[in-house]
Amino acid sequence: MATRYSIESLRTCAAALMTATGFPGEVAAIVAERLVDADAMGHDTHGLQLLGPYLDDAAAGRMTLEGEPEVIADRPAAVTWDGRRLSGVWLTEMAVGLAIERARACGQATVAIRRSHHIACLATFLPTATRAGMMVTIASSDPAVVSVAPHGGTKPLYTPNPIAVGIPTKGDPILIDISASITTNGMSGRLAAAGRRMPYTAYLDAEGRPSDDPAVTLADPPGSILPIGGVEYGHKGFGLALMIEALTQGLSGYGRSQAPAEWGASVAVTVTDPAAFAGFDAFVRETGWLAEAARANPPRAGIERVRLPGEAGLARRRRAEKEGVALHPGIMEAMAARARDRGIAVPEPV
Amino acid sequence: MATRYSIESLRTCAAALMTATGFPGEVAAIVAERLVDADAMGHDTHGLQLLGPYLDDAAAGRMTLEGEPEVIADRPAAVTWDGRRLSGVWLTEMAVGLAIERARACGQATVAIRRSHHIACLATFLPTATRAGMMVTIASSDPAVVSVAPHGGTKPLYTPNPIAVGIPTKGDPILIDISASITTNGMSGRLAAAGRRMPYTAYLDAEGRPSDDPAVTLADPPGSILPIGGVEYGHKGFGLALMIEALTQGLSGYGRSQAPAEWGASVAVTVTDPAAFAGFDAFVRETGWLAEAARANPPRAGIERVRLPGEAGLARRRRAEKEGVALHPGIMEAMAARARDRGIAVPEPV
Repeated sequence: MATRYSIESLRTCAAALMTATGFPGEVAAIVAERLVDADAMGHDTHGLQLLGPYLDDAAAGRMTLEGEPEVIADRPAAVTWDGRRLSGVWLTEMAVGLAIERARACGQATVAIRRSHHIACLATFLPTATRAGMMVTIASSDPAVVSVAPHGGTKPLYTPNPIAVGIPTKGDPILIDISASITTNGMSGRLAAAGRRMPYTAYLDAEGRPSDDPAVTLADPPGSILPIGGVEYGHKGFGLALMIEALTQGLSGYGRSQAPAEWGASVAVTVTDPAAFAGFDAFVRETGWLAEAARANPPRAGIERVRLPGEAGLARRRRAEKEGVALHPGIMEAMAARARDRGIAVPEPV
Repeated sequence: MATRYSIESLRTCAAALMTATGFPGEVAAIVAERLVDADAMGHDTHGLQLLGPYLDDAAAGRMTLEGEPEVIADRPAAVTWDGRRLSGVWLTEMAVGLAIERARACGQATVAIRRSHHIACLATFLPTATRAGMMVTIASSDPAVVSVAPHGGTKPLYTPNPIAVGIPTKGDPILIDISASITTNGMSGRLAAAGRRMPYTAYLDAEGRPSDDPAVTLADPPGSILPIGGVEYGHKGFGLALMIEALTQGLSGYGRSQAPAEWGASVAVTVTDPAAFAGFDAFVRETGWLAEAARANPPRAGIERVRLPGEAGLARRRRAEKEGVALHPGIMEAMAARARDRGIAVPEPV
């Protein structure tokens, strides 16, 4: 049985570590909530594992602790912020809130953010919008990092480029969170550290040979992660990645041409209000019909049943609310060491 | 050497066939232009091959020839049309025009269309927007047709669900046109008719066994096309497909729950104005940098060089302008037979 910790105790400890490092209470509370959300939903490469790197960046002056984003442009359905390297988790949460407000007024709106610090787990920002009856899309890229090669190429050029989509239905929302590459930097690093391999081809080595070994991405010269579709139809993943680069770095006006020195994110949040189109009821009639039909679809051999994106995460989340969060090995140890150094109470197992 | 026909002669013949069937001249001109564009760019399953089915639908009363779409809802950045089964090619062209106008005013805008007739090749609608300095996304689904099973499932539930994205750069635009499934209905039908197979696993038979044989989709009971990612990571293609179903059928309020009897499309056109965000110059600085870096990426063995989405299509298009369009076998024969029946001049090879 995995050790479990209450959501509340994890949030309290993470927020206390952040305020002790100088973050305002409001920022600390939101970052702690979203990181613990990620662990509770099972996205454990993008949850509290990131807290240490965030605190280190804050202490080293690589992250802005306080203040507001600078407004670069403001139109009814289009807002552009310079994030000034403020917490990306906090900026993204604020951007979702603003995009909801603008979508209510105009039908749809996008907030683009340049120079955000890292934004963690995109799926955790979706429920705020779906609970408000909105469809939401969040795309992110890191113009300082390269790990994926373009389709047909061999040299890392861009990031896995996640895109998350929240879709209201009559019941639970559909929560999509995928990257435009076969796997992510976080998963590759974790597997490589454990000496493990992917169950299928997900990489090219630096000479362009297909591989299932994440260690090729750490070699010198490095290999690359394949776009979704791999060597066969990777033009699809490459196309999606280019769309995400344009939405995030193009719209925010800050990307790879600027050769940023520190990790971070360019972000685009789009909120669409079904009530402004054919109506919320018609929207959820269609999304609900599709969700039910997908769940009732006869599974292939070896698959228990068809699951919708987000279904497993929401189930894990519900279990975590009752029984606590089971953290990936090493995460509590790292957080507890930092808490003890600061005289902050370490979460007790439930 | 393939027989080639001038773009102008193909357009003239196709438009004449349409007006002879009762379409207004303006509709005929746009449909003919976009179908020939598709052939000129090499998307030859979605070009003049569709003219015959369109004319047959028109003659049989399965398509509305004249009139305007009905406006269901109109907000600054969100317009919803009932397409009344008017030509989907014409409706989509009009929707791109309206979305450009609204995006200029608001920064971004979406036009959703229900009950459109078939819209042909999405890539052909993109240059109108990119030439206007806009980023454009067009998504389409057919709520009357099923051919793709949800990830983990075996029963066809939805359509390949194409999404096309046009991205301005300093030079040629990036023109992405992909489906959320490994291959399309059009390609599967063509390969099956020729007794050919896909070069990789793209299908499940009705029992859920992976296959490269498009004939499984025509069996009784039918197999299915796999979402992109296949049996390994098809949750990514399934997620994209759900996003596209929500954008097209959810926003337009007309989808699979309505069990439409005739093929057609629910459509969403989104236009985003980079000038409303960080500015057009910053946008194309980033997209242009990325395009150049991708083209310069060292290719893997067997690949001549990295190409951007749309690059091959635009090169084919330029050749077609000079040397004429090479049609897929059977397309000219079918069009010529209809033209002779109507006393319309058949295009001469160049």
